[in-house]
Amino acid sequence: MTGAPAPTAPHVLIIGGGFGGLAALRRLAWSPVWVTLIDRRNHHLFQPLLYQVAMAGLSPASIATPIRSIVRRQGNAQVLLGSVAGVDMERKLVSLEDGTRLGYDYLIIAAGAQTSYFGHEGDWSKFALGLKTVEDALEIRRRVLLAFEAAERAPPHARRRLLSFVIIGGGPTGVEVAGALAELARYVLTDDFRAIEPRQARVILLEAAGRLLANGFNQKLSHKAASQLAELGVEVRLGAKVERIDEFGVHLADDSIEAATIVWAAGVQPNPLAQAPGLPRHGSGRLQVEADCSIKDHPEVFAIGDIAAYLPRSAANPLPGLASVAIQQGRYVAQAIAASVNNRRRRRFHYRDKGIMATIGRSRAVLEAGSLRLSGRLAWLLWVVVHIWYLIGFHNRVAVMLSWCWSYLTYRRGARLITGERSWEMLPKLMERPPRPSSPSQPSSSRRRRSA
Amino acid sequence: MTGAPAPTAPHVLIIGGGFGGLAALRRLAWSPVWVTLIDRRNHHLFQPLLYQVAMAGLSPASIATPIRSIVRRQGNAQVLLGSVAGVDMERKLVSLEDGTRLGYDYLIIAAGAQTSYFGHEGDWSKFALGLKTVEDALEIRRRVLLAFEAAERAPPHARRRLLSFVIIGGGPTGVEVAGALAELARYVLTDDFRAIEPRQARVILLEAAGRLLANGFNQKLSHKAASQLAELGVEVRLGAKVERIDEFGVHLADDSIEAATIVWAAGVQPNPLAQAPGLPRHGSGRLQVEADCSIKDHPEVFAIGDIAAYLPRSAANPLPGLASVAIQQGRYVAQAIAASVNNRRRRRFHYRDKGIMATIGRSRAVLEAGSLRLSGRLAWLLWVVVHIWYLIGFHNRVAVMLSWCWSYLTYRRGARLITGERSWEMLPKLMERPPRPSSPSQPSSSRRRRSA
Repeated sequence: MTGAPAPTAPHVLIIGGGFGGLAALRRLAWSPVWVTLIDRRNHHLFQPLLYQVAMAGLSPASIATPIRSIVRRQGNAQVLLGSVAGVDMERKLVSLEDGTRLGYDYLIIAAGAQTSYFGHEGDWSKFALGLKTVEDALEIRRRVLLAFEAAERAPPHARRRLLSFVIIGGGPTGVEVAGALAELARYVLTDDFRAIEPRQARVILLEAAGRLLANGFNQKLSHKAASQLAELGVEVRLGAKVERIDEFGVHLADDSIEAATIVWAAGVQPNPLAQAPGLPRHGSGRLQVEADCSIKDHPEVFAIGDIAAYLPRSAANPLPGLASVAIQQGRYVAQAIAASVNNRRRRRFHYRDKGIMATIGRSRAVLEAGSLRLSGRLAWLLWVVVHIWYLIGFHNRVAVMLSWCWSYLTYRRGARLITGERSWEMLPKLMERPPRPSSPSQPSSSRRRRSA
Repeated sequence: MTGAPAPTAPHVLIIGGGFGGLAALRRLAWSPVWVTLIDRRNHHLFQPLLYQVAMAGLSPASIATPIRSIVRRQGNAQVLLGSVAGVDMERKLVSLEDGTRLGYDYLIIAAGAQTSYFGHEGDWSKFALGLKTVEDALEIRRRVLLAFEAAERAPPHARRRLLSFVIIGGGPTGVEVAGALAELARYVLTDDFRAIEPRQARVILLEAAGRLLANGFNQKLSHKAASQLAELGVEVRLGAKVERIDEFGVHLADDSIEAATIVWAAGVQPNPLAQAPGLPRHGSGRLQVEADCSIKDHPEVFAIGDIAAYLPRSAANPLPGLASVAIQQGRYVAQAIAASVNNRRRRRFHYRDKGIMATIGRSRAVLEAGSLRLSGRLAWLLWVVVHIWYLIGFHNRVAVMLSWCWSYLTYRRGARLITGERSWEMLPKLMERPPRPSSPSQPSSSRRRRSA
């Protein structure tokens, strides 16, 4: 338990318990300030592994930790569950959706990002599932597993659509989901079904740009990623621009792909808090911040992580939406606040690029750090070490490591549960949907043993 | 992979993938029959540990295994996800809710039980949460954790109701939930909150009968259980008959208990399938079965486990709803079917009582097997060994054991996630509910450090 500050010490309010907000909170443990962290969820989520929950490899509790239990020993900090409705920078007040108002001396906006359908929220989000929250991941898990269950019970002509999975977006999330889904079908579910052959499932990864991992990775690694995905049987389609998504599947300019399950990994947008009046915005919609991560004319208000657009001195583009950016900014603003409290001058924020990585599957990954470029087994081993290392909490590290060892050795996955109310009622709906008359589905070869 | 039977081999249909259905299916692996198991869920649930999920000690995947993956190597078995609507014993057909019909030569009805509110389903189930499914457990977990979150943000006078937890029913489930909830408040959540003191939470266990664990346990062990609960701070009220449950709490004949969270562990009833016309029913509503677990005049139809009422030769009461009864009956009917297929005579089913146990908390349990009666640490150790042993699947055993070791050593729990859509919106609803004018709640003492 760290020492308690004076009752009159300044109050730091942090919105969001992600990587940035949590890093700031922990770094403020030894500063003479009171800290309140507000989040809509009670848990910090290790987003980089969320796709593993969606693909039935890990349980939610393995990658999510109650924020309270992370900061339980920090005497100057409290955690509140609540949703922020607005920020009044003139009166230094934050209002919650339930009407509560909280005053602050320093404010750190670290509310993160959410899925963006580029203006098609209403019609596309019904069919293409985003992947930003634990609930999202559980819904994808449920839908993917239900598609196999429905295919097992469906007549042969309906199986092709049920066993087609489209992932839209070839960034790290899309690549990771596609690889894990292909492995699920090829290795994990094999032997489990009787009427269908899970390895005949199609996994199609669509990317509008000319290469995968176009943001941040070198072109050679993009090609490596594509070839590693191809080894797993993923159909990678580059330059594939989605024009429409509906109950039949995904429609491109020159083709339509019938699919019962569609995952959307194509874009994120800042938390709606960034749209509050009076806050300066970057062209990307994120909050424009100064060299010290503060909002212009408000040195006591900071924005960090995915909600902020920080332009390094000599760069045209803001820093990318990475955990390492958010963590470094969180630690920096904690130090900037400590400097202000102690009447010292703030330094400029400086981002240290630690590199980026994406995993494609068992023993397959790409990694780029400075001039170092790796792919394959070594990149994958480094990916495993880094991700376990950064998982907060001893318990989770052990649980994840064990889950992975077990999956690696046995090619099985431990979290293949279909939950949610009355899942079985979704089956007829999934199976009944008629194939489009224009593109009749071909009966897939099957090894049906006996129809009851 | 076991050998495949001839295509014309008899077809055994099993309804339900619980302890009974699964035991029957596995025992039929070497019989010359085809087996189809139908369940509404894709997973077998280890019910005896479900309360651990509700109390944030274990993740759902630690106690639930996909039925498919359990029987993946059994070549004569297939698993279908679906909900049974009815049984036509004359035409030997089972119909599913989606209209599918499945023929059978032998039928095993092992559909289990569900929560019963004794005719108050409509008005009580809204306020008192049952505990039979993974979804039930996650909802209880969410509500319990949200109650603490709401209390942290609520004004002092509203905290007492939020921190009052009532468990109705003093059978094994009620005892286990009460003990685990008391430990959660006293040991796990301590240090996590700032405005409230979690150990001041009240945990009240209501039992209508004159003693706890009245079904099956010796009177001495009932007293031991009550005193072990009292050590943990649980208020045990015997002879407490619930007259009404509403948004304020639980109303007894002579008292009312204000509580925001109520868990219902007072009763179960057989799956509604037992009400199908033409099936003989016992006074308990369960299916009346013959000495060989079959339905009268239908030697090809069996009912086992919680849905069946089996009367041992010299007993007035049917066998209790225990996993060991279901497992033994499952194995027995598999042998009875094998006997019929091979034109051998069936023997009468004989139940071997292996004893019963209930855990109360860390190092606290009661156990009764024949003339052996144990309580305290030794009973608890045996409870741990037995439960891990019976958990199906190597992975789960390791995961559960590790979770327990970790919880035992650190008094922390790893699955304290509040999930489900927009949980934070429940907070104001939880907090706003006015206390009853007739019994004003007393402001609890607090250690509020700073109001923001």
